[in-house]
Amino acid sequence: MSVAVAIELGGSHAAVGLVNAHTLIAVEDISLTPKAQLARVLPNLAICIRRLLAQNNLALNQVSGIGMGIAALVDWKSNRVVGTNGKYSDAPSIDLVGWSKENFGLPLRLENDARMGLLGEWYGGGLRNADSAIMLTFGTGIGCAALVEGKVFRSSQPQGGCLGGHIPVNLNGRTCSCGAVGCMEAEASTWALPHILQGWPCIETSTLFGNTLGGFKELFDAVAEGDLVAEAVRRHCIRVWAAGIIGLIHVYGPSKVLLGGGVMKSPEMVIPDLRAFIHRHAWTPAGPVEIQVASLGPHSALYGTIPLLEGR
Amino acid sequence: MSVAVAIELGGSHAAVGLVNAHTLIAVEDISLTPKAQLARVLPNLAICIRRLLAQNNLALNQVSGIGMGIAALVDWKSNRVVGTNGKYSDAPSIDLVGWSKENFGLPLRLENDARMGLLGEWYGGGLRNADSAIMLTFGTGIGCAALVEGKVFRSSQPQGGCLGGHIPVNLNGRTCSCGAVGCMEAEASTWALPHILQGWPCIETSTLFGNTLGGFKELFDAVAEGDLVAEAVRRHCIRVWAAGIIGLIHVYGPSKVLLGGGVMKSPEMVIPDLRAFIHRHAWTPAGPVEIQVASLGPHSALYGTIPLLEGR
Repeated sequence: MSVAVAIELGGSHAAVGLVNAHTLIAVEDISLTPKAQLARVLPNLAICIRRLLAQNNLALNQVSGIGMGIAALVDWKSNRVVGTNGKYSDAPSIDLVGWSKENFGLPLRLENDARMGLLGEWYGGGLRNADSAIMLTFGTGIGCAALVEGKVFRSSQPQGGCLGGHIPVNLNGRTCSCGAVGCMEAEASTWALPHILQGWPCIETSTLFGNTLGGFKELFDAVAEGDLVAEAVRRHCIRVWAAGIIGLIHVYGPSKVLLGGGVMKSPEMVIPDLRAFIHRHAWTPAGPVEIQVASLGPHSALYGTIPLLEGR
Repeated sequence: MSVAVAIELGGSHAAVGLVNAHTLIAVEDISLTPKAQLARVLPNLAICIRRLLAQNNLALNQVSGIGMGIAALVDWKSNRVVGTNGKYSDAPSIDLVGWSKENFGLPLRLENDARMGLLGEWYGGGLRNADSAIMLTFGTGIGCAALVEGKVFRSSQPQGGCLGGHIPVNLNGRTCSCGAVGCMEAEASTWALPHILQGWPCIETSTLFGNTLGGFKELFDAVAEGDLVAEAVRRHCIRVWAAGIIGLIHVYGPSKVLLGGGVMKSPEMVIPDLRAFIHRHAWTPAGPVEIQVASLGPHSALYGTIPLLEGR
C-alpha cells in the first residue's frame, strides 16, 4: 500500500491527513491563531503526522511523500511560496522541501490550496473526467483554480490561475487585502462580511446589529428567520459572486463551475439564485455552464495529494 | 514567394491585405454599415482580394490560403463562427471554408479578431519571443486574447480567452450588449461613450454636451482643451480599464499587457495613468507587469495570418 501525507494550510484552519489513492484514511484538524506564522505551525504539523502514522500502524518507509496546499501564491517550478496575503507571511523564507527531508526523509510538493482542491475534485470528485472547469472555494477568503484541457492552469507568473477570487467586480467597492479595489473577495467573503454588515443601510433594524458575525451560517440563519437586512446582504453576495464567476466563465471558458468551502454547506441559500443569475447573464454559445457544489466536502485539497505528487 | 490573403472583419471596419511572412504587402480598408450582415460583405471581400492580387501581379496559385479574423466567437475545431454580438449576426449560418474554396480554391482558417491580433504581435510585433501575455484591442468594443506558455489561449468553450473585454467590473453598471452587467466594454468603450456622457453629472457644462461623439479622439481633444467633464470621463475609463486588466492579470498571469486599437493612438492620454493604477493595485509577486502599446498599429490582426494558417 502506498500512502501519502496530505496537508492543507487554509485561511483559518489546517488539516493533516493520510491518503491512499482515492481514500482519505485519516484526518486531523488543527486550529490556527489569526495571522498564524508558518514557522510556528510546522512543529504541530510534524507531531500530527507522526501521530497519524502511529495510529494507522504505518512506518515512514511506507509513505511516498508529502503534498501540501497553502493559502498563498506558490511558484510551481521552484516549489516555494512567493506571495502571501495576511496569513503565513513568513512562508516565502521557509524551505519546506528541506523541512520535509530533515524531519521525515520524504519528498514534498507544494501548491496553492485552491489548485490542490481542484486537483482533488479532478482526481476523485466532481471533476472526474472533466476537461475544463473552474473551482471556487468559499472559506475565509475565496480561492480559485482552473482546469484547462485536462490540466491545472498554471502560468509563468505565480498568481495566474489562483486569483479568481480577486477579480475586481465593484468599481466603487472597498479596498481588498490583496491591494486591488472591489475584488469579489473584498465584496462578499467570510472575512468581509462584518465590514459589509457594518455599513449596510438600516443595519440597526436587523437581528445582526452589533453581532460579531462569525460567517455565512449566521447570515443564512437570520435570512431563514425573515431578517430583511440579512436577505439584502445575501442577495448582494450572490450578485458579487455571479459577476465574478461570469468574468471567470468569459476568460477561462470552462464547461463546469464547482463551488466548495464552508459557505456551500447551505447550498439552498446560494446555488439556485446564483445559477439563475449566471445563466441569465453569461455569454456561453455552447449552452449554460453547469454550476455544482464540490463533492468531496471540506477536504477536497487533501484528495489532491496523490495527483500533486505525480506532477499533475 | 508564398503569399497569404489576410482579412479582418472588425466592429466597424474591415480590411483585406496580402502578407508575405512578416510583411504586409498591400492592404485595402472597407467601410461597413452598422450591424453589417456577413453575406452582404463577402462579395466585396472577393472583389477586393482579386483587385489586390492583380495590382501585385500575383496569381491564385501563388497564394497559400486565407486567414480571417472576425469580431465574433469562433470555434477553433469546426472553423466556424458560433456566437455574434450585434455584428455579422448571420455568420454562424455561413460556411466560410466553402466560400473560400468555391471562389478561390484556397484553404481558409477562421479566428476571433482579437486572437488573430495577438498572433500578429506574437509573430512579428510586440510579443515576439513572449511566453505569456494578454492583448486588449480598444476599437468599437474591447477585444481580448491571451498567450499562455507560448500558445494562444483557447478553451473547450468558444468564449474562453476572447471575452476579457466582458469581465464585469461594475456591479451597479449598465447592461452590456453581451448580456452581462457592468462589463469593461459597457463601462468604457467607443460604443459606450455616448451613453456614458449622456448620463454624466453636469454634462451640460461640457463642450461635449449635445455632441454625437464619434470616439475617444474627440474626448481626448476636449480633455486637452481643459474640459472638466471630459477629464472626469477619461479618468473613469482609466479606472474601468485598470480594474478589468487587473482581473486579467490575476487570472492569466501574463508577463506583459499589450494594448492596441484606435483608442491607443493617443497613448499619452491612457498609458501613464493606466500603468500607475495597475502597478499600484495588481498582486504580482514577480514584479510589475509590463504595459505597452501594440507595435503593429491598426493591422495587427492581418499580420496574424501566417501563424494562423500554420495552425498556431
